[in-house]
Amino acid sequence: MMAKIGPSGSGCLLSPEQPIAVYMQGCVGMPEGKTGQGVLRYSTNPIVAVVDRGTAGASIDRYTRGLTPTPIVASPAEAWQLGARVLILGVANPGGFVPDRWRADLDDAVAQGFSLVNGLHEGLQARYPVLRPGQWIWDVRREPQPLRVGSGAARTLRNRRVLFIGSDMNVGKMTAALELDRALRQAGVRSVFVATGQTGIVIAGRGVALDAVRVDYAAGAIEAAVMAQTDAQAILVEGQGSLGHPASTATLPLLRGAMPTDLVFCHRAGQSHLANLPEIALPPLRAAIDLACALAEAGGVFRRPNMLGLSLNTAHLGDVEAKSVLEAFGNELGLPICDPLRTGPGPLVEALEHVISHP
Amino acid sequence: MMAKIGPSGSGCLLSPEQPIAVYMQGCVGMPEGKTGQGVLRYSTNPIVAVVDRGTAGASIDRYTRGLTPTPIVASPAEAWQLGARVLILGVANPGGFVPDRWRADLDDAVAQGFSLVNGLHEGLQARYPVLRPGQWIWDVRREPQPLRVGSGAARTLRNRRVLFIGSDMNVGKMTAALELDRALRQAGVRSVFVATGQTGIVIAGRGVALDAVRVDYAAGAIEAAVMAQTDAQAILVEGQGSLGHPASTATLPLLRGAMPTDLVFCHRAGQSHLANLPEIALPPLRAAIDLACALAEAGGVFRRPNMLGLSLNTAHLGDVEAKSVLEAFGNELGLPICDPLRTGPGPLVEALEHVISHP
Repeated sequence: MMAKIGPSGSGCLLSPEQPIAVYMQGCVGMPEGKTGQGVLRYSTNPIVAVVDRGTAGASIDRYTRGLTPTPIVASPAEAWQLGARVLILGVANPGGFVPDRWRADLDDAVAQGFSLVNGLHEGLQARYPVLRPGQWIWDVRREPQPLRVGSGAARTLRNRRVLFIGSDMNVGKMTAALELDRALRQAGVRSVFVATGQTGIVIAGRGVALDAVRVDYAAGAIEAAVMAQTDAQAILVEGQGSLGHPASTATLPLLRGAMPTDLVFCHRAGQSHLANLPEIALPPLRAAIDLACALAEAGGVFRRPNMLGLSLNTAHLGDVEAKSVLEAFGNELGLPICDPLRTGPGPLVEALEHVISHP
Repeated sequence: MMAKIGPSGSGCLLSPEQPIAVYMQGCVGMPEGKTGQGVLRYSTNPIVAVVDRGTAGASIDRYTRGLTPTPIVASPAEAWQLGARVLILGVANPGGFVPDRWRADLDDAVAQGFSLVNGLHEGLQARYPVLRPGQWIWDVRREPQPLRVGSGAARTLRNRRVLFIGSDMNVGKMTAALELDRALRQAGVRSVFVATGQTGIVIAGRGVALDAVRVDYAAGAIEAAVMAQTDAQAILVEGQGSLGHPASTATLPLLRGAMPTDLVFCHRAGQSHLANLPEIALPPLRAAIDLACALAEAGGVFRRPNMLGLSLNTAHLGDVEAKSVLEAFGNELGLPICDPLRTGPGPLVEALEHVISHP
């Protein structure tokens, strides 16, 4: 387990010392629990418990490798007894509504005195209008203010703007960005992570909940977040979804808002079809990369981004198999490659340091 | 002037007999007045007046060729005296907020008793909560209900789904779709126009205000509108914006939601740069077309759409020049071509009838 270095950026309701519990009812070890897993991996707050009735009594690292051991308890009340005062909803379901099966737990948590960090589309402030002194609800998935349309202004910046794109949702785009951000700052590069999804925002304390922004303002919201970081040498923009996923259209406002100079392509080794639409195949990686570059260029109008490298998620493979898969992908595509959680983001750090010093 | 055949679809607060006035303060003959121009050209309601202080006293056809002569008056009160009872906001400004210089007129109109059709992002229902019996405010730019994410379901339909894409905003995508819809239905084809912007929705009486939909639900909203039209042989989906415009990211949810079988590319003859970002060039038409097809295909995962043809806006040219420009573009790209308002949409009708009968 690497030392926790908090990501760049701050400014949320959650202060750094507050002890938190992560609500993952029914989602421990599941793709739907990725928000919780991200918080467990990267939050710098003290995390006293995970809440999940089905796995209560165990420790979270039994279900997700590499996480700090944390007790799983059955209810918000038990997490409160362990000292937690903020409950982070650690789930990311398609559509983003609060399922009925969680409502009693949330009612109990608010009655108990928990503050809530809610990354679902459905806001909870309106559901719980009366709170105790010091208790708060942070509905993360809100449009940023002020709203504006994009102008392409980010293309005039002189820094590197790295966008993480992927072959599917939930393949490791945020993880790659956070690991690269940490390694760059350890190497003395002025890097900043720009969160664009609920998990990243909870971790970073700020960002753009892109999927909650109206289409008209989507590129403008990303552009504003990027333009606010003019002091950075490298702006690492968290990607969302995938160009080939029919539910996911965030990549275009990310490209137009950030005007990336560099792309990192993220993929889960061996995955051949979309996880939640298994009748739809993934394109060949080379075709997916070419399409992203072509879309960024817009028919030659904007600068073609540099392919910095690949971030391969090999969490489901053994060490030997992972090593051979990384070599095979790297050779096939002729690009720097890593699994940021297994091998570290070194090759991407080197590639970015190279383009920073040889622009 | 062709006979007005109302577009397919209905269901709004505006009933077909209500006399309307079109509010175009400061926008007569301007790109910002495109909503008003669209309503003036295609609405089947009686239109008694245009409201614009600067050109009051003249007739609207003096400023926009091809429109039915309609008096321009200086105030909502004068339009009321002429019999108008519904005021349609005929403007489409970037950002979609009500400028201060219109507020007094809108206050006067509501006090006078006008119902309002408002296509701006900024809702007016909240501003005017107290209305007279029978008076109403239709805020067009609202998210459709229920909200859902896209699934790519439209690709399983057996009909033709034609998406109109363009080299810029405001080059004639809606006009091309409405003219083709009308001509197809005159030719006995079961065609339906799916509006995706405020002007089209006001004209058709229904549709998806795509730019007001949150990114997460954008493709799903288009998909739902398309899937509701399973009886149609041809679904003509109004395009929005342009792939090369940094403020405009609607094309991706349109592609994923509609899963088009056919594209019509729309362009203004002679235009070389974006109208409202003149430092950004348009890509060559061939590159823009190839990019749209490649994005629709998503690296080979979905079917590559058929390029049905080009819709060229030649409104600013004389007849001789327009004819030669149409020939030159058609030859260069090897595609059916027309200016739907000058030459009619015949070549696109023929091309679509051909693919319907030879799928």
